[in-house]
Amino acid sequence: MKLLDGKKLAQKRSAIVKSKLLETKKTRQPKLVVILVGQDEASQVYVKHKKNACERVGIDFELVNFKNSVKPKEVLDKIAALNKDTKVDGILIQLPLPSDWNEEEFLQAVDFSKDVDGFHYINQGKLYQGNETFVPCTPLGIIKLLEEYEIDLKGKNITIVGTSNIVGKPLIGMMINRGATVTACNKNTLDIKLHTKKADILVSATGSKFLITKKMVKKGAVIIDVGIIRDLKNKRLVGDVDFENVKKKVDYITPVPGGVGPMTVQILIENTIKAYNNNKK
Amino acid sequence: MKLLDGKKLAQKRSAIVKSKLLETKKTRQPKLVVILVGQDEASQVYVKHKKNACERVGIDFELVNFKNSVKPKEVLDKIAALNKDTKVDGILIQLPLPSDWNEEEFLQAVDFSKDVDGFHYINQGKLYQGNETFVPCTPLGIIKLLEEYEIDLKGKNITIVGTSNIVGKPLIGMMINRGATVTACNKNTLDIKLHTKKADILVSATGSKFLITKKMVKKGAVIIDVGIIRDLKNKRLVGDVDFENVKKKVDYITPVPGGVGPMTVQILIENTIKAYNNNKK
Repeated sequence: MKLLDGKKLAQKRSAIVKSKLLETKKTRQPKLVVILVGQDEASQVYVKHKKNACERVGIDFELVNFKNSVKPKEVLDKIAALNKDTKVDGILIQLPLPSDWNEEEFLQAVDFSKDVDGFHYINQGKLYQGNETFVPCTPLGIIKLLEEYEIDLKGKNITIVGTSNIVGKPLIGMMINRGATVTACNKNTLDIKLHTKKADILVSATGSKFLITKKMVKKGAVIIDVGIIRDLKNKRLVGDVDFENVKKKVDYITPVPGGVGPMTVQILIENTIKAYNNNKK
Repeated sequence: MKLLDGKKLAQKRSAIVKSKLLETKKTRQPKLVVILVGQDEASQVYVKHKKNACERVGIDFELVNFKNSVKPKEVLDKIAALNKDTKVDGILIQLPLPSDWNEEEFLQAVDFSKDVDGFHYINQGKLYQGNETFVPCTPLGIIKLLEEYEIDLKGKNITIVGTSNIVGKPLIGMMINRGATVTACNKNTLDIKLHTKKADILVSATGSKFLITKKMVKKGAVIIDVGIIRDLKNKRLVGDVDFENVKKKVDYITPVPGGVGPMTVQILIENTIKAYNNNKK
């Protein structure tokens, strides 16, 4: 069994981005603006990770933190202003927004050329038509992690458990674009095991602790665990996969933490650099 | 075994559209414009089907047939003019375009509110995020055909063979939106049978004659055949599925012709009416 070390790969890629950026002739730094509404604790942690990652490579990071009482119109106006601001390369709306807001309205308000999260309809449409431009960070992080370990996707049986708009669905599109045979399971799937057992590569993205057990995976498979759950018993972070038992049976597996998470943040950095390079043209 | 009679359902739905349209107070008819470049024989047949279907329900149909020698710019200018024309509700680019043209450029030039083929990135992105607006005609035709026969999709194992941008990929998204467990096979899939055998609903959209044989399908399955191939031996139209043998083993199957084809044209009609109703608002 070999660990798919997302932390290490993210560090390696981060160093490359940093040195490339240092070599680039520039009149200004790349800039990412994150919009956060309220004081959600998990969101604050995620935003801090993003800030650190930006500062590490030399991306100018700005957090616009609105109070929970802000009017939606004010946030939309801010997004419109950022869209026009030629010094801003990437705009990210930190989810969740207040529960009575329509998140789509805000995600779609971001100009698609600054959409470093890859959630704009135009970027999503391009992805599914095989023309990947700005694609969501977690799925692309997974692809890059598999590439690093030279795990080919073409012709492989890939099962994805969880079909969210943020991870599962775009990953399905990206795996199909790379010639994989893809099976997508969701909460209505009657017999998940039927589909996980035949997977050469299994991706679980449900946030359901230890959903994937040893008997559900194929011997020699590659396991990607997107879940991050705080285990209340011992306060550790755990994943969708029963790591300690599953690892004995498979060839490759991501740890939690240190697998997919760091890659997600790293791809955000790379998407921001991509937007910056486009913006300069 | 029961036939999934697309021809009959298309006629039924067409009659409903016609009578609704007659009842509607209107200052003008709905209008669909089809752009065709050159004299491709198959394209001309398809365009004629669309014209007939439009005229049957009371949609004004216009064909803009450019010569093969036309400059791309001229076609793009025409699309721009049609986008602005408030009397035009739907615009359809008949594919294929000349082989050295970039089809995407033309498909994306159509205003997304007149995109009755559902190929615009915005409409595609919405589809995959579960917000179906204008979606491609063949996949929606298949969904409507299954609905007509009260074949539920939630929790079903659905295998789709063929992942084109026009049929396979959007159908995957639409099936996932409806809670199905979806497996997508393509030309790299090593063992198609492994995936077709477990399918409660099997959709084949490859254009490969008799790819799907009796031993590849599950007893009692539902079979949707999107292929239309002219059998050179006896000049009949046949599909991806070995109909005569497969039909003995399954519960439902689409005939070729008379299954998916008529539904595709009918959904184009319904998308045009939808664009017309939006346009009136």
